[in-house]
Amino acid sequence: MSGFGPRHLPYGVFSRPGGERRVGVRLWSSVVDLSVLGGLLATGSLNPLMAAGRREWTAAREAVAGLVASEPPLIPLRDVTLHLPFEVADYTDFYSSEHHARNVSEILRPDSPGLSPQWKHLPIGYHGRSATVVVSGTPIQRPSGQLAEGVFGPTRRLDVEAEVGFVVGRPGRRIATTAFAEHVFGVVLVNDWSARDLQAWEYRPLGPFLAKSFATTVSPWVTPIDTLATVAGVAQEPEPLDYLRPAGPAFDLRLAVEWNDTLVSRPPFASMYWTAAQQLAHLTSNGAAVRTGDLYASGTVSGPARDEVGSFLELTRNGAEPVTLSDGTSRGYLENGDWVRIGATARSAGGEEITLGSVSGTIVA
Amino acid sequence: MSGFGPRHLPYGVFSRPGGERRVGVRLWSSVVDLSVLGGLLATGSLNPLMAAGRREWTAAREAVAGLVASEPPLIPLRDVTLHLPFEVADYTDFYSSEHHARNVSEILRPDSPGLSPQWKHLPIGYHGRSATVVVSGTPIQRPSGQLAEGVFGPTRRLDVEAEVGFVVGRPGRRIATTAFAEHVFGVVLVNDWSARDLQAWEYRPLGPFLAKSFATTVSPWVTPIDTLATVAGVAQEPEPLDYLRPAGPAFDLRLAVEWNDTLVSRPPFASMYWTAAQQLAHLTSNGAAVRTGDLYASGTVSGPARDEVGSFLELTRNGAEPVTLSDGTSRGYLENGDWVRIGATARSAGGEEITLGSVSGTIVA
Repeated sequence: MSGFGPRHLPYGVFSRPGGERRVGVRLWSSVVDLSVLGGLLATGSLNPLMAAGRREWTAAREAVAGLVASEPPLIPLRDVTLHLPFEVADYTDFYSSEHHARNVSEILRPDSPGLSPQWKHLPIGYHGRSATVVVSGTPIQRPSGQLAEGVFGPTRRLDVEAEVGFVVGRPGRRIATTAFAEHVFGVVLVNDWSARDLQAWEYRPLGPFLAKSFATTVSPWVTPIDTLATVAGVAQEPEPLDYLRPAGPAFDLRLAVEWNDTLVSRPPFASMYWTAAQQLAHLTSNGAAVRTGDLYASGTVSGPARDEVGSFLELTRNGAEPVTLSDGTSRGYLENGDWVRIGATARSAGGEEITLGSVSGTIVA
Repeated sequence: MSGFGPRHLPYGVFSRPGGERRVGVRLWSSVVDLSVLGGLLATGSLNPLMAAGRREWTAAREAVAGLVASEPPLIPLRDVTLHLPFEVADYTDFYSSEHHARNVSEILRPDSPGLSPQWKHLPIGYHGRSATVVVSGTPIQRPSGQLAEGVFGPTRRLDVEAEVGFVVGRPGRRIATTAFAEHVFGVVLVNDWSARDLQAWEYRPLGPFLAKSFATTVSPWVTPIDTLATVAGVAQEPEPLDYLRPAGPAFDLRLAVEWNDTLVSRPPFASMYWTAAQQLAHLTSNGAAVRTGDLYASGTVSGPARDEVGSFLELTRNGAEPVTLSDGTSRGYLENGDWVRIGATARSAGGEEITLGSVSGTIVA
């Protein structure tokens, strides 16, 4: 609960038993009920505030800070149910970690390893299924599918992808990288669950489909963008085309992936090649619209070291090199009953360490 | 207007100048205002009726037929604006014409022509962008993007894809092919506009993204599924896995593609390899949810003959063999000011020929 102090105050949607949904912020181990502030914060959904734009976002932060500084209506977290914090419009997933892209290529396509030709020219992405975006804690049913020619059954290579998601507030088209903060409301953590056997069989030539459409989990708390300190991104060579410049801010989130009770990886978000501002500029460069509630995720976050990777595909080299968990058992991929939690810490704009809302799920048969 | 008689009555959403949106059906060259029927039909949106399920769909058809048989409140089409007939949840696009898949492979990947290994084992599909699904008549702005390494500008290979779209009414997961008619409300025509230069540069390994996300046009009229006569589908060899059997109904829609004033192609929907029931079964086989308003499209409809293809990529062999239009000009791909209309006729369940709502759009710079 450390890291959820009065300088963070991420937004979420909660309810009490038998009660209606309300917008709140997290403070330590409690929720502050924001319905007392009225207006956009009394609607039971974050979307109206998200749609209102940066001026309203700033006004809301001031109102919330004032409420928290006085005698806020606190409700212990254990007494509430947390819901999906926003209604998801389109869900897009990128592929912007160079380490991840190189690892995947090396493991799955050893005959032609390396980045695809356009990788350093544009942030590769694809559309996912917004119907199956769920909130942290939702059990994940092991998906079935075609594992190979003639074989249908439960996936044998159920994986995670530790990612950072960006939530669009103000709609737009052709959004310059410099307009990023006018359109993006906040950040969530994302686990883009993946079935690697389904993916390998289905993905050519139109990309992943059922391997990733069964569930995508997001954290229940949305951290407003300007809560986070920004850092310089990684050097980009060759220089990107004009519409991808300047690169915009990078964020120094330090992710942690726990598999059952074992910390197995610490993916560094600051190592991503493409920034969130470049992803949004690319996504909308063709005239495509983003709407309030659009979620776009960074792609799996992997650093250069083996204990910094954001997928088990990379961690266990596609199951060939299992990891040993703290209970002495070993794993190549997820087993039924396994539990995964992705958390993150970051430096706030004010210089304190804050904790992002974590994203967890348990695998069921 | 022939083909829009009292046995068809496709649903749409319309408004009069300054008026609110209302649900209607098309009868000849008029709209019948269904708000007089009250209940689910008086909401200004088709989604509540779509969500209600087949029993309500049948009851609504009976009420509509009764209204049309008496003195229906007719409004000439020229006096109304037609809107997107339903709110799109997730948009999915398949790739289920064997002729199209073989043509594309031969034209774009001549070094490795033919179907990908899984093509006859599952209906290949991918997710698209629901924010940019628009109603017929919406002008299509030529998209810009990376045409090749280091080149950003307006696409030079702007194409159409003539498709048939299926609109989900009742939500579900793991929908057997035999439950198709319990979940699918109706059929629309779809033009999945595509920028072939963007696509060629961006699509490996995660599939098409910006090449198809700038606009997808649907017809303003949704033809209820059970209005259409069904036929046997094409023979499938090898036999599909159990979850894709039985294949379910096929529909004998005869599409027509007009480029400016010239009829350039007549794609036969009955030649599709995978049925709509198999597509839905596959889409939901991993546990993924479909919701009211989900739109899934067949993929480009192409028959075996050169004048039966559903894309200009195929018609002009990627621009290498331009077509001559009736005004004497020739075209490889779409030019600014060009206009495309995709229409279709079909046999109704009662044995008459009916006309589906067409889908059209004009290219603007």
